[in-house]
Amino acid sequence: MGELRRDPVVGRWVIVNTLNSLKPQDYEKETRELHQEGVCPFCPGRESRTPPEIEAVRFDGSYPNAPGWSVRVVPNRFPALDIHGDIERRAIGLFDMCNGIGAHEIIVETPSHTKDCPDLNEQEMLQVVNKYCSRAGDLARDKRFEYILIFKNYGSAAGASLEHAHSQVIALPMVPKYVAESLEGSQNYFEHNKRCIYCDMIAQEKKDGTRVIAENDDFLCFASFVSRFSFESWIMPKFHQANFAEMNDGQRYNLGCMLKDILRRNRICLGNPSYNFFINTAPTKYKHHHSYHWHIEIIPKLTNMAGFEWGTGFYVVLTDPADAAKYLRQAA
Amino acid sequence: MGELRRDPVVGRWVIVNTLNSLKPQDYEKETRELHQEGVCPFCPGRESRTPPEIEAVRFDGSYPNAPGWSVRVVPNRFPALDIHGDIERRAIGLFDMCNGIGAHEIIVETPSHTKDCPDLNEQEMLQVVNKYCSRAGDLARDKRFEYILIFKNYGSAAGASLEHAHSQVIALPMVPKYVAESLEGSQNYFEHNKRCIYCDMIAQEKKDGTRVIAENDDFLCFASFVSRFSFESWIMPKFHQANFAEMNDGQRYNLGCMLKDILRRNRICLGNPSYNFFINTAPTKYKHHHSYHWHIEIIPKLTNMAGFEWGTGFYVVLTDPADAAKYLRQAA
Repeated sequence: MGELRRDPVVGRWVIVNTLNSLKPQDYEKETRELHQEGVCPFCPGRESRTPPEIEAVRFDGSYPNAPGWSVRVVPNRFPALDIHGDIERRAIGLFDMCNGIGAHEIIVETPSHTKDCPDLNEQEMLQVVNKYCSRAGDLARDKRFEYILIFKNYGSAAGASLEHAHSQVIALPMVPKYVAESLEGSQNYFEHNKRCIYCDMIAQEKKDGTRVIAENDDFLCFASFVSRFSFESWIMPKFHQANFAEMNDGQRYNLGCMLKDILRRNRICLGNPSYNFFINTAPTKYKHHHSYHWHIEIIPKLTNMAGFEWGTGFYVVLTDPADAAKYLRQAA
Repeated sequence: MGELRRDPVVGRWVIVNTLNSLKPQDYEKETRELHQEGVCPFCPGRESRTPPEIEAVRFDGSYPNAPGWSVRVVPNRFPALDIHGDIERRAIGLFDMCNGIGAHEIIVETPSHTKDCPDLNEQEMLQVVNKYCSRAGDLARDKRFEYILIFKNYGSAAGASLEHAHSQVIALPMVPKYVAESLEGSQNYFEHNKRCIYCDMIAQEKKDGTRVIAENDDFLCFASFVSRFSFESWIMPKFHQANFAEMNDGQRYNLGCMLKDILRRNRICLGNPSYNFFINTAPTKYKHHHSYHWHIEIIPKLTNMAGFEWGTGFYVVLTDPADAAKYLRQAA
């Protein structure tokens, strides 16, 4: 197979298939057909099928909860967590628990039922990124919440139940384990080296060059040396920043361009796969802004998790990240 | 949705849908058709399609690598790790790495192409469990290896590429992250309480009773209060033991019976879903045998991981474990 590699931030190991690295055509292609057009609650004219909107980018003269929007934010009709109530923590014997308080919102990225990020123009992508920032900023002011996650599921294999392009926002009353491990790992590195581990990672990836997929003034996109999944890519700001919601206008614009670019490359290279992406960012009350550095992980859904991964926390990566980057660079 | 619950050993959070808990029929059913009969490398008569066998349970007078076996252990023809060579650790800048040394074996559980564990009798299941123990014991004597994982993937949605019933063995040159976290969590608990956290968990589950699925002289099977997945179940030995390979004959027999029973219940209740199971056990060089307690996690594949799970390490469980246990108890 090849090499064992250790993630320097969270300590997990991956097995990378460097000896017999799979090509894009070696993965089974999904068939993707649209089934929900005409009954979609996210399409213009069906605004009443969602809870009342929280925010929207609207054309002049249009009214809330009516057509005339380009991006629309609504509460999730089937939320994972409930926005109402105080947090009550308790124990049942061995187990700590808490009532299910949080926020769960939907950002409908476009009025078009058939478009996804690669089909939007740069200004439309900027509007989406602006909503990521404004919702995260707004929810961070709610003192009950400690972490705001922005993520996207595209395609049923990636867990999307609705096919109309949308991202999601979840606000949590605690810092999740995966985030806490990243914070701890990056703080430890900072204490030893007085540098941000992600800034060092950017320098190393740029110097090496083999895993770089794309770059613009503010962002580097690369296939991480310690990818968990085949054709996984990371978008990392070249400027040091812990909380993505603090981006300025130019940075937001460049993030929209980079997201559009990498998702388009994935579509061309891998045949429009289901995918997830999520923003790793600092918790709302985090103080060590010098050691953490926000970034996005983009995971095309090409393989299934199996017993080995569940039983160990190892991941098996069938395409060498350097090869993945080469294919994605060529898919322009 | 319901409740947030924290795993007391590894610290991850799950969101449990206690308010609108899904029934078995609410999950999409898989269609399961056999396609590989007649070309299967694990069927009798095709022994030459695998590497030479390591062990087998053979009928008198049969020869290695020929028909006449009931359980057969072979090296994986496409191993995740290579058995040959010394371990060489090195660093590339930020990243620690190691050549891909390990073992990867297949335990073919039955000569029948169409049977799975629920179709085997108790003696046949005992033979499978015996092979789990003998392979783990044998590989543990190789000083290069620190952890031996036994696991099973059934169905393509659970990552199985071959449909003939088989388990897998992987030996690793390091203790994996998920295992290390379990060891650390259970050691911390032992230091505070002078008791094994898993023994306490068994006592609590038995006292509560609502999540118990089945029990025999040596094993309790229950839907954990902090399940990661809908209809996940754990098999836990009622006797304290850190390393499963140390089971005596009676315990092995009872484990085989319990595995057969719970997999049969899953099949009846959930419509023959794809599933993974794996044995959580102590590392080969582990000394704190008083604080760790081996157990098996069984995960039917009913939903897909999505961006929220990847971005946080949270899990969303759509069926309350108490309801899952009720349905599985009834599926007798």
